Amino acid sequence: MSIEAKFEKRLSILQVEESQSFAPKFDDNGLIPVVTTDYKSGEVLMQGYLNSESFAMTLELGEAVYYSRSRKQIWHKGKTSGLVQTIREIRIDDDQDCVWLKVDVDGGASCHVGYRSCFYRSIPFGRNLDKSKRIELKFEEKEKVFDPKKVYGDSPNPTKL
Amino acid sequence: MSIEAKFEKRLSILQVEESQSFAPKFDDNGLIPVVTTDYKSGEVLMQGYLNSESFAMTLELGEAVYYSRSRKQIWHKGKTSGLVQTIREIRIDDDQDCVWLKVDVDGGASCHVGYRSCFYRSIPFGRNLDKSKRIELKFEEKEKVFDPKKVYGDSPNPTKL
Repeated sequence: MSIEAKFEKRLSILQVEESQSFAPKFDDNGLIPVVTTDYKSGEVLMQGYLNSESFAMTLELGEAVYYSRSRKQIWHKGKTSGLVQTIREIRIDDDQDCVWLKVDVDGGASCHVGYRSCFYRSIPFGRNLDKSKRIELKFEEKEKVFDPKKVYGDSPNPTKL
Repeated sequence: MSIEAKFEKRLSILQVEESQSFAPKFDDNGLIPVVTTDYKSGEVLMQGYLNSESFAMTLELGEAVYYSRSRKQIWHKGKTSGLVQTIREIRIDDDQDCVWLKVDVDGGASCHVGYRSCFYRSIPFGRNLDKSKRIELKFEEKEKVFDPKKVYGDSPNPTKL
C-alpha cells in the first residue's frame, strides 16, 4: 500500500485536531505549505510546498522533497547543490494544513542566494519604523556560505517578480 | 504616507534578492504566508497569512496582525483570547514572498485548540514508518495550556474540513 493511500479522509474537526489520524489538507492547487527549521539552531531556513507525492517521498526517504511551484516539478532538495536536508522530526499543525520539518543541512546552507537561511534580511517595525522615510531591509547575515554561480551555474533563478 | 504605500515595486531579481528594497510579493489572493516562532525557544508556533493591510498594521503596532482566510477579515491575534503576540524581530525571505515573525506570547499559547504551538503532533517517517500499518500521529505536547471552551466560548471553530 502506497504512503499516499494512507492519507486519511477528513471527517470531523475532532478527528483532524484531537486524534492520531493523519489527514493532511491540500489546497486547491494540491499543495500544503511547509516550514523548514534547522534542528540545532531552530532558525527558520525556508518555506516551501509539498504535493501529495513529495509528501510521501519525504516521509519515506527522511529527506526533504518539496514541490517547486516555479519549475512545476518534484524537487528533491540538495540533488543539484548537495545541500541535502536530513529530517530529524516532522510535525503537522492543528488543522493539518501545514507541515514543520526540523532538519540537518549538509553544507550548512539552504538558500539559493547563498545564505544559510532564506530569511537573511529583517524589516524595521514599531519604534524603528520611521514613517517619513523609505523602509529599508537590514542584512542580518553578512557573508554568503557558498557562491551560487559555482553551485547552480546557469540554471534559471527560481525567483519570480 | 501610509505604510502600504511604502511597499516598493518589484523591478529586478537583484533588487528583490540582494538589496535593501522592501518589495513583498502577495499571491493571487493578495496574501503572503507568515511563519511565527517563539523568540526564546525558537519553536514554530503557527503559520498564517498577511494581506497588505495586516502587514502594514503588524509593522506599525509591533504585534502580529494576520488575515484570517476562514473568517475573511483582519485578525489581530490575541484580541479575543488575550494571547497577544509581541514582535521581537521580523524577517523576509530571499524572493520576498514569505515573512518570519519572532514573537513573545502573552499567556504562552498560540493554538486555538489550547496547546502552546499549533504543531503539537509529529508524523513518523523513515525507519519509524511501518508501511504495513496505518500512519499514526504522536502527541508531542501532552497538556493543553488553556481550555478553548473557556477562552473562545461558542465562537465557530476556524478549522475547515
